[in-house]
Amino acid sequence: MIPENIVFGGKAAPEIASFLSGKKYSQIGVLVDENTERHCFPAIAGAVKEARLIRIQSGEERKNLDACAAIWRSMTEYGFDRKALLINLGGGVIGDMGGFCAATYKRGIDFINVPTTLLAQVDASIGGKLGIDFEGFKNHIGLFREPGLVIVDPDFLFTLDKRELRSGFAEIIKHSLIADAEYWPVIAGASFENQDWRSHIAHSLRVKSRVVQEDPRESGLRKILNFGHTIGHAIETCYLNEPGKRLLHGEAIAIGMICEAFLSTKKTGLTAGEADAITEHLLKVFGKQPVDMQFAEKIIEITLQDKKNYQGQVKAALLSRIGKAVYDIPVSREDIYNALSYYNSL
Amino acid sequence: MIPENIVFGGKAAPEIASFLSGKKYSQIGVLVDENTERHCFPAIAGAVKEARLIRIQSGEERKNLDACAAIWRSMTEYGFDRKALLINLGGGVIGDMGGFCAATYKRGIDFINVPTTLLAQVDASIGGKLGIDFEGFKNHIGLFREPGLVIVDPDFLFTLDKRELRSGFAEIIKHSLIADAEYWPVIAGASFENQDWRSHIAHSLRVKSRVVQEDPRESGLRKILNFGHTIGHAIETCYLNEPGKRLLHGEAIAIGMICEAFLSTKKTGLTAGEADAITEHLLKVFGKQPVDMQFAEKIIEITLQDKKNYQGQVKAALLSRIGKAVYDIPVSREDIYNALSYYNSL
Repeated sequence: MIPENIVFGGKAAPEIASFLSGKKYSQIGVLVDENTERHCFPAIAGAVKEARLIRIQSGEERKNLDACAAIWRSMTEYGFDRKALLINLGGGVIGDMGGFCAATYKRGIDFINVPTTLLAQVDASIGGKLGIDFEGFKNHIGLFREPGLVIVDPDFLFTLDKRELRSGFAEIIKHSLIADAEYWPVIAGASFENQDWRSHIAHSLRVKSRVVQEDPRESGLRKILNFGHTIGHAIETCYLNEPGKRLLHGEAIAIGMICEAFLSTKKTGLTAGEADAITEHLLKVFGKQPVDMQFAEKIIEITLQDKKNYQGQVKAALLSRIGKAVYDIPVSREDIYNALSYYNSL
Repeated sequence: MIPENIVFGGKAAPEIASFLSGKKYSQIGVLVDENTERHCFPAIAGAVKEARLIRIQSGEERKNLDACAAIWRSMTEYGFDRKALLINLGGGVIGDMGGFCAATYKRGIDFINVPTTLLAQVDASIGGKLGIDFEGFKNHIGLFREPGLVIVDPDFLFTLDKRELRSGFAEIIKHSLIADAEYWPVIAGASFENQDWRSHIAHSLRVKSRVVQEDPRESGLRKILNFGHTIGHAIETCYLNEPGKRLLHGEAIAIGMICEAFLSTKKTGLTAGEADAITEHLLKVFGKQPVDMQFAEKIIEITLQDKKNYQGQVKAALLSRIGKAVYDIPVSREDIYNALSYYNSL
């Protein structure tokens, strides 16, 4: 059920070597940031001995057109032709942006993704979404293209600090809430320190694969993956330019899921008891980050640019129960304001 | 044989109206430059009454990332969602760049192309190549995507000056040389003033469609369309930053075809008589633009970045006879130098 281009569980280096043994690439580039160059590249260096390193600085705030230009410039200076390969070694920024640069360099060269964060392993690894932020809007410019290979090697999780690991956990929780009620007790029944990450990754890959295979271009079902993201994404985007407030993706999505569980009780039949259980678990793991209501208007404005909207109407994915999501639910400015106020009142 | 998404011969306004009548777009944008806004937009304005105009400045030197950012910004400010449509009204720059911007805005919205130059009608209209120039390299960043519709309306040719018309003629000549010996006398037998453009457009659409349908991703046969372009493209690129020297695409390709016909006599069996006939006709139409040999080294360097190369070896498409091209023929630095010298000696 997991797509053929994803390998899960093995070590990255032999998987890369095996992939390359069947191919004739003219050159190989490895896109890294200062963290993955130091902590992750040594684990694969033996498999890509003649590779050119292409370095960018880490951080969502650098997932932009300037960084793309730097990557394209490096590939040009190294003389990459259309038979070159780019290996994206890093988290979501590296995978999304490196994939976009590869898919558009000389109208497209092959690329493979080696996600090194939990978040990228359970989320960005599937579904072929590539792209960059643009003038404050997340993933505003991009396209759909599947990597030639995605290698999900859980050993890379040892390179992460707790906050990074927790950020990925938010998407794992989401996958259970939108599509698998039976998995919810597995997650909610253990503390953050006692989660079984290998099982969670396998579970997330199964859930997301199933959804994406049914609707690769997000014209329907795939929108359920947006649960927590209408508001969460907007908070993340809003805080991107507020240095002291910046949140990791999963931290913002955790707030978004609490807000949207609240809206689900108003609009789509989620019971108060279920919403409370969701809220309780998310607060236990992520703590509370009160939303400064002076930003409420800006957050609401940003939701209006969400890619799932149609004709200026914000459409959210909400829960009808734990394990079942519905999509294209209209949400008003007032709804969003009320949800943010609710979160602050907790 | 011409692809279904291309309509040829009718008026643009009713074709657009008919296309739109079957669709439900949330908004419509029309990308224009100062020339097409003035001379071409009035002809379609009635069919797109509520469209938003997106304006860029004309010129190949503005087919770059900055212009893309301006287009994406306009679409964002107009609040375009994923169900918006972009109509690209103009020559190759508008079609290539507008298509690229549409195909990457929010991971892709629909677009249609209305080519208004002869060059765009006979060349860029087919094959789904989209993109922009990057730091001096032509079409270096881009992707393949077919427009939802291409409307080839010969009436727009009346808006062109002679030099623009002649630029398109170069690709028409190329299509005969690489794939249709029988059409060559039709072209060579008439002066520039007495060419039948409507027939030529139909002929070019047939030839290019056939080639592109056999090899949409340019892994083989499609490379024959590159005849004249290995050297021609490099000259065009080199002169892009030499204000007094800038050539239109077809003017550079005419020089490239003379140079590559010369190389064809050395490498792929074109007879001297055939090469002379080609050269004579091209000089009659385009005159001679001596190549300043102080740029020879730079022109050669640029051919090394050609997208059809492999492992640093320049590969050209050459003629084995009039009406028949072969591709992936290795060409050395010295070959290119000799071909430029030959051209200058004429």
